[in-house]
Amino acid sequence: MAGNSFGQLFRITTFGESHGVAIGVIIDGCPAQLDIDLEFIQSELDKRRPGQSKITTQRKESDTVQILSGVFEGKSTGTPIALLIPNEDQRSKDYGHNVDVYRPSHADYVYDAKYGIRDHRGGGRSSARETAARVAAGAVAKLFLKQQGIEIFAHVTAVGTIEAPNLESNDLKALLTIREENIVRCADPATAHEMIDFIDSVRKDGDTVGGKISCIVKGCPAGLGEPVFDKLHADLGKAMLSINAVHGFEYGSGFAGSELRGSEHNDIPQPKAADAKVFKTITNHAGGILGGISNGMDITFKVAFKPVATIMHNQQTINAAGEAAEIKGKGRHDPCVVPRAVVIVEAMAALVLADQFLRNKASIV
Amino acid sequence: MAGNSFGQLFRITTFGESHGVAIGVIIDGCPAQLDIDLEFIQSELDKRRPGQSKITTQRKESDTVQILSGVFEGKSTGTPIALLIPNEDQRSKDYGHNVDVYRPSHADYVYDAKYGIRDHRGGGRSSARETAARVAAGAVAKLFLKQQGIEIFAHVTAVGTIEAPNLESNDLKALLTIREENIVRCADPATAHEMIDFIDSVRKDGDTVGGKISCIVKGCPAGLGEPVFDKLHADLGKAMLSINAVHGFEYGSGFAGSELRGSEHNDIPQPKAADAKVFKTITNHAGGILGGISNGMDITFKVAFKPVATIMHNQQTINAAGEAAEIKGKGRHDPCVVPRAVVIVEAMAALVLADQFLRNKASIV
Amino acid sequence: MAGNSFGQLFRITTFGESHGVAIGVIIDGCPAQLDIDLEFIQSELDKRRPGQSKITTQRKESDTVQILSGVFEGKSTGTPIALLIPNEDQRSKDYGHNVDVYRPSHADYVYDAKYGIRDHRGGGRSSARETAARVAAGAVAKLFLKQQGIEIFAHVTAVGTIEAPNLESNDLKALLTIREENIVRCADPATAHEMIDFIDSVRKDGDTVGGKISCIVKGCPAGLGEPVFDKLHADLGKAMLSINAVHGFEYGSGFAGSELRGSEHNDIPQPKAADAKVFKTITNHAGGILGGISNGMDITFKVAFKPVATIMHNQQTINAAGEAAEIKGKGRHDPCVVPRAVVIVEAMAALVLADQFLRNKASIV
Amino acid sequence: MAGNSFGQLFRITTFGESHGVAIGVIIDGCPAQLDIDLEFIQSELDKRRPGQSKITTQRKESDTVQILSGVFEGKSTGTPIALLIPNEDQRSKDYGHNVDVYRPSHADYVYDAKYGIRDHRGGGRSSARETAARVAAGAVAKLFLKQQGIEIFAHVTAVGTIEAPNLESNDLKALLTIREENIVRCADPATAHEMIDFIDSVRKDGDTVGGKISCIVKGCPAGLGEPVFDKLHADLGKAMLSINAVHGFEYGSGFAGSELRGSEHNDIPQPKAADAKVFKTITNHAGGILGGISNGMDITFKVAFKPVATIMHNQQTINAAGEAAEIKGKGRHDPCVVPRAVVIVEAMAALVLADQFLRNKASIV
Repeated sequence: MAGNSFGQLFRITTFGESHGVAIGVIIDGCPAQLDIDLEFIQSELDKRRPGQSKITTQRKESDTVQILSGVFEGKSTGTPIALLIPNEDQRSKDYGHNVDVYRPSHADYVYDAKYGIRDHRGGGRSSARETAARVAAGAVAKLFLKQQGIEIFAHVTAVGTIEAPNLESNDLKALLTIREENIVRCADPATAHEMIDFIDSVRKDGDTVGGKISCIVKGCPAGLGEPVFDKLHADLGKAMLSINAVHGFEYGSGFAGSELRGSEHNDIPQPKAADAKVFKTITNHAGGILGGISNGMDITFKVAFKPVATIMHNQQTINAAGEAAEIKGKGRHDPCVVPRAVVIVEAMAALVLADQFLRNKASIV
Repeated sequence: MAGNSFGQLFRITTFGESHGVAIGVIIDGCPAQLDIDLEFIQSELDKRRPGQSKITTQRKESDTVQILSGVFEGKSTGTPIALLIPNEDQRSKDYGHNVDVYRPSHADYVYDAKYGIRDHRGGGRSSARETAARVAAGAVAKLFLKQQGIEIFAHVTAVGTIEAPNLESNDLKALLTIREENIVRCADPATAHEMIDFIDSVRKDGDTVGGKISCIVKGCPAGLGEPVFDKLHADLGKAMLSINAVHGFEYGSGFAGSELRGSEHNDIPQPKAADAKVFKTITNHAGGILGGISNGMDITFKVAFKPVATIMHNQQTINAAGEAAEIKGKGRHDPCVVPRAVVIVEAMAALVLADQFLRNKASIV
Repeated sequence: MAGNSFGQLFRITTFGESHGVAIGVIIDGCPAQLDIDLEFIQSELDKRRPGQSKITTQRKESDTVQILSGVFEGKSTGTPIALLIPNEDQRSKDYGHNVDVYRPSHADYVYDAKYGIRDHRGGGRSSARETAARVAAGAVAKLFLKQQGIEIFAHVTAVGTIEAPNLESNDLKALLTIREENIVRCADPATAHEMIDFIDSVRKDGDTVGGKISCIVKGCPAGLGEPVFDKLHADLGKAMLSINAVHGFEYGSGFAGSELRGSEHNDIPQPKAADAKVFKTITNHAGGILGGISNGMDITFKVAFKPVATIMHNQQTINAAGEAAEIKGKGRHDPCVVPRAVVIVEAMAALVLADQFLRNKASIV
Repeated sequence: MAGNSFGQLFRITTFGESHGVAIGVIIDGCPAQLDIDLEFIQSELDKRRPGQSKITTQRKESDTVQILSGVFEGKSTGTPIALLIPNEDQRSKDYGHNVDVYRPSHADYVYDAKYGIRDHRGGGRSSARETAARVAAGAVAKLFLKQQGIEIFAHVTAVGTIEAPNLESNDLKALLTIREENIVRCADPATAHEMIDFIDSVRKDGDTVGGKISCIVKGCPAGLGEPVFDKLHADLGKAMLSINAVHGFEYGSGFAGSELRGSEHNDIPQPKAADAKVFKTITNHAGGILGGISNGMDITFKVAFKPVATIMHNQQTINAAGEAAEIKGKGRHDPCVVPRAVVIVEAMAALVLADQFLRNKASIV
């Protein structure tokens, strides 16, 4: 109820503060007999890890994950899987100046307002460090989905006003290779180059910039999603909006679709070939979801991230007494959050899909 | 779990099909001793009611609401409030042609895929008729919020590519009056005029068009929202995305904010005057929410609706056997959904805020 | 959260007060394509109905149930099934004397303490009339379980100190016939006769008496129940304890089992015959449940009901101001609640089993 | 949903297997600003710890608890409190003989039936070792309740057929001292002596024996509990029945109350003295709960534990293939579970009360 859990049947609960002992997650509801590939979980965490390139924060965390429970001889047992990631590089002294001063566009003030107490070290629970726990849990969800033939791929499609062209390939494996060959995680190499240069210049300015991540899901069967409040895209939207710095979500035709006429927007179903198993439409403005339920086509959505609030400039602000104060960003921060957020977007999508996959098993008996 | 409930402490469960006996809602968790103003609930329903103007569907439903329980001598008792809205004008014969043919961009196919059975009359449970139950429940939530000094105002800010200018006034009561003086529910009279003409011409073409609704919340105290998964804007986003035809949600600076730099986007807090009670920033890119928690400023968000799928044109499609078929929209449908959706957006926002208001009471004891 | 819902995947939410317009229930999560036999639902309600014999309350309610949604052409569609039971015989004037006086051992005082407001007519929401909604929903759960080969049978095994001998037959259908042939619903005709005479004499004294109901479930497959908090017997226990007047629950060997030694209590598994499909133990102290999970043997439990609080004697009490007052029971009440509660026990058991059946489908994929 | 969480607003999720790396718990929803007394938490764990006396298992575990998150400078911050208890003495080789043989009256078979895989070392997740996590979380709940003036006291009232007389004192602090002066944790020293001798003789026989624990809650305000399904005693019942080996629960008059007449059972309210603040009845058959809601009187309930299944005798059983097999208990086990279970009963009661305390805050606003 205090909102540190996500999902119903495939349910995670995260804990931990940025500069505490450790962060971690309990996965409750992972089906039994799933192969739990620890190397894969670690490789996912490595994609979110700080300090991985010149355009990410220089905080040093190996983010080494340990399995505490729920796995026996390499397989899930149906009991809770607890994953622990110890914190290593907690330079809390960087944050001494935040005790009484509210950083602009940070959550400092609201935590004080809500709880009357605040772990001010590195943002405490409001730090995006919490998302490492999500990535670990999301990796387990991905292992489950892979078993069901469902694949997820996200990449950076905008940094500031630099936008990537639409993907031409449908081969997620090949796209993944291209994406991981550049540090901004855009699957279009030319745009990636431009984005990296731009982020680097922003960083040198002591500034930050926002961006967008697009995601595609392939192999999702028809029938996932519940029809009224827990529509598949509503759950995906909530999942994405719960990621730090996200300010917008759209799926399928999205905001642009609201400018169209029905005659332009409708996706026309194609007659099935004799041997076809799936529903196909000529266009996919629906983003693979009709009435909140997957229709078997590719699921597509886009997520908008605001610029990171910590900048290396002097800024006016107030202290806890409401008096004028000045602050200058210290600590180690990302100039742009999207390169590290790609795997978070994928993790949250995986968690939603694994959950709705299990929920759908109760639709017909 | 089957997703017909929304909210945790202020929780609703809706039921009913478009052409069944009745639709309705149970509100579980409305605090005791609240004055339940039945006239107000009815007046909210009247704003969503079909047949209210030339630019809405001509289906005739009085949408008269009855209270079945939970209210004693005009006040809530703390027990479940059940609200019933009988269906009156079920012209089911209009839908005989849908039994075997899947309407393009409708949910017909996915219901068959998920459940293997489908109430094909008027879309059954996938019909936006379900939202009448939400509006009734949302009206009760509004009564609760009003008691706490929280007000919600939404209006149409785009139809197709016609966009309304930003609001100049802050007086929600005055804006409401202006909004209700035009049938498209835009608080800018000049734009409203243009929108109405456009919708009317689209309607005459037998076509439909999408649009956008913007919403503002005033008087929300700081502290609402839970910090990780149940961030206030994540719950608002899920609420909006669960409304039929919604394809996008953004709050505060939204998608445009992702193009900015941190130095442009950060909202600078203003020193408090000696007698001030609230946190104030010069700009409000945060949309009144920091780290998922309300900061006391205005909460702002925008919702994108795709065009209605039912058009009065011949369309290619397939039948349940996967064979080519042709369909022409009959029945009575809206050329543009946003005028009637304004009160649905407000209702869902009210439900989120009432829920988070109650949840916040457990933060400190 | 306000506690008017029960179950997770097969989930019900009830509403309604004793002397309001109607009571009812929404079933959310009933799988699609189930035959919904309205006659069966009504026949279950008839077993709980007031006024059915000389040893039950004389309140006249036909308890006629209507289906408002979720059923199409006789089958469940996967959408919420709303069931409505209008109240007919609300002799509220019988309760005028309760406005300010707290009836001993009734919930009047605590509702005032909790909510500061109370629908005093017939106990409002605290009346056992609410259980009619549970019986209706439980009947749907029974239809689902029957499809899976699971049968539930409860009967009265004690009234006051009169105890029925253990069942000799295993034929639930035959036992049901015997049970329904006597108005106290005990499957042992000789004891039934004795019980009826005793209740009748208690009734003539203007008094009431408690009793016990035993329940057996046959055909339950191994694997139902979740291992830690949602053990099958913990969910059954909560279900039973949520029924009005219940003061105790035990399963398998129960309280008596706590007096035994392990060497006496352990159930010894029998080697499987070549063609056997199920686990069998010589004794069944486990009551069909090990570690919270069904083992395929008969599930057995017992429920204790206190005597009805409303008696036709003068009683001392207090009024809302805390002053001494005197009260004499009026209204129409049961001298002993167990004959009508048999079908409530079965209904709640059915709801638990249907829920855990669906939950178990996510254990292995 | 997989049932490793308990509570709604004060919610815990446990993880860990008997012979895994560690066990632990996340508390989500502990209000901010509570003093978290680590010494107290540890002292509670010490009461459940194995190896504490000659009548408990000789497994050596220090059960040292670590706080991983949610506490800052000694106070709760409102974020999840993660508590970790590493396993130290995992003599898994004791369990090699259980791989293929199902121990009588243990959960081995049902885990295989449910999940198709089983961590056979020491019972895995079905081991009562899981309850250490509950005790740690329950200690935090007790700290919260203490702040509200609510105290909980449980003690052993029966071992086999040896029953303790009713308590004469009302001074929980004094009773606690007496209870902790004997290793069986009975607050009546004479009976305690008899119980200890009996358990010791049973242990020497290689056998085990069941028992009962009674609990009393003082200082609980009126109004806790939700009226229909989440009645206070229903939640308490579920909590107790979820503890390993529990086979029965009763509150107030319990099973014996079902033998009484209404005229004997009704609790007569006493007029309030001018300065009295609370509701008082002459008798307390209600056990402090009316209609599922606390009335301000002492809350009383009793819990029955079956004998431990592991005995040091040869027993017939079957293997995974269903063939006859013989097993003899090895490992280190308790001859009687109740001395160590006293603090588990208190912990679960504390979790229920803390949860319902927070839930009640939403009843009136």
